Amino acid sequence: MRLLSFESSAKTASVALTDGYRLIAQYTQSGGLTHSTTLLPMAKTLLSDAGVSISDVDAFAVACGPGSFTGIRIGISTVKGLALAANKPCAGVSTLEAMAWHGVSASSFICPVMDARRNQVYNALFRTDCGKPIRICKDRAVSLEELASDVKALSAPVFIVGDGAEITAEYFDINGISYIMAPYNLRMQSAWGVAMASQDAKFGTSQELLPVYLRLSQAERERQAATNKKEKTK
Amino acid sequence: MRLLSFESSAKTASVALTDGYRLIAQYTQSGGLTHSTTLLPMAKTLLSDAGVSISDVDAFAVACGPGSFTGIRIGISTVKGLALAANKPCAGVSTLEAMAWHGVSASSFICPVMDARRNQVYNALFRTDCGKPIRICKDRAVSLEELASDVKALSAPVFIVGDGAEITAEYFDINGISYIMAPYNLRMQSAWGVAMASQDAKFGTSQELLPVYLRLSQAERERQAATNKKEKTK
Repeated sequence: MRLLSFESSAKTASVALTDGYRLIAQYTQSGGLTHSTTLLPMAKTLLSDAGVSISDVDAFAVACGPGSFTGIRIGISTVKGLALAANKPCAGVSTLEAMAWHGVSASSFICPVMDARRNQVYNALFRTDCGKPIRICKDRAVSLEELASDVKALSAPVFIVGDGAEITAEYFDINGISYIMAPYNLRMQSAWGVAMASQDAKFGTSQELLPVYLRLSQAERERQAATNKKEKTK
Repeated sequence: MRLLSFESSAKTASVALTDGYRLIAQYTQSGGLTHSTTLLPMAKTLLSDAGVSISDVDAFAVACGPGSFTGIRIGISTVKGLALAANKPCAGVSTLEAMAWHGVSASSFICPVMDARRNQVYNALFRTDCGKPIRICKDRAVSLEELASDVKALSAPVFIVGDGAEITAEYFDINGISYIMAPYNLRMQSAWGVAMASQDAKFGTSQELLPVYLRLSQAERERQAATNKKEKTK
């Protein structure tokens, strides 16, 4: 199956064309430019350079969260539009599970971490089995303290990947927790990871594709806080 | 140092923009289209999408062999042209050493292999030390039999990477040699590997940049055979 995959849940924008496990082409930008202006042109260039038209693509996949609210929305919207226009199925996968694919040959345990601000990281833990990441826990927003406690209980050093890798490594260093730091070519999100994670995903229509934020957005938190305050003063 | 790196020594065409260890952007195509028409436009797109102009690039790096004679020539010519026009330094690195960077977090030993045809592979062996590949032997064209014998002498399974990975793994399977197969995102050459390998390289002028073929080209072999035949019949 020829799959076009997208990753835009953090600073990195990435597009990949795969056929099963085979990576035909991948284009990744981590320079911090706006995904809304870069992501779709990147896909267009990649397909054109590979001599593949959008009608030759069998399905689309996208990282649907957790991550930056705006980044996720851009990725999801792009894939919703493409799937609808091309009348092809699409699937959303966990950003963390996609990243876990970067560590399958590195260690027995993989620890993707995204900086979730407010003293938390988005994280899930995975063990590797026959070159695949197997989930140990659900995607979550946790403190570094909680994460360190979970990692301590594992029997081997974890492979740390993601834009939260540096702050996690720093915390692990202080607390004497052993880890393997992902080299820079594997540190950030990739659309290849999305493609791999989508192998076990349910492909559906563009309408069924939904973001997974894990936490409320700042606007929603503020509205909730205002409502609570109002209720109290009643 | 902002470095623009190129890899075109085999089927894969890859361009990367790095700043020290940091990977800013990478674009890789393994679809088999002609490097002469894809490589330079890929670089142009990548720089433009990253908001970087060619004058902002401090230096250029390229995989200078071993590999496909045509592929190497295209990569070297591209970088010679860019370095000359931009009046910036450039460096050539071993294709095999660049690939070895794909295995630094995977195993104690790395075995890059490129299909060199005529029952040989281009290969060098590396051990990993503090996240860097350290060369154990020179780049060479060897038979799988010779390679297997060298790998048997190592104390841990080797990480196999490169377009010769499948034929090598097949031979190792038959001969009971343990190995770790590179996942597809790390299997083929990358310009990121070139950038990393260039850290210890000598940067010079475009004139100093030369290809390393390891073996004679088919045309040269045929000429040599014809000359030898002529000498014998004299």
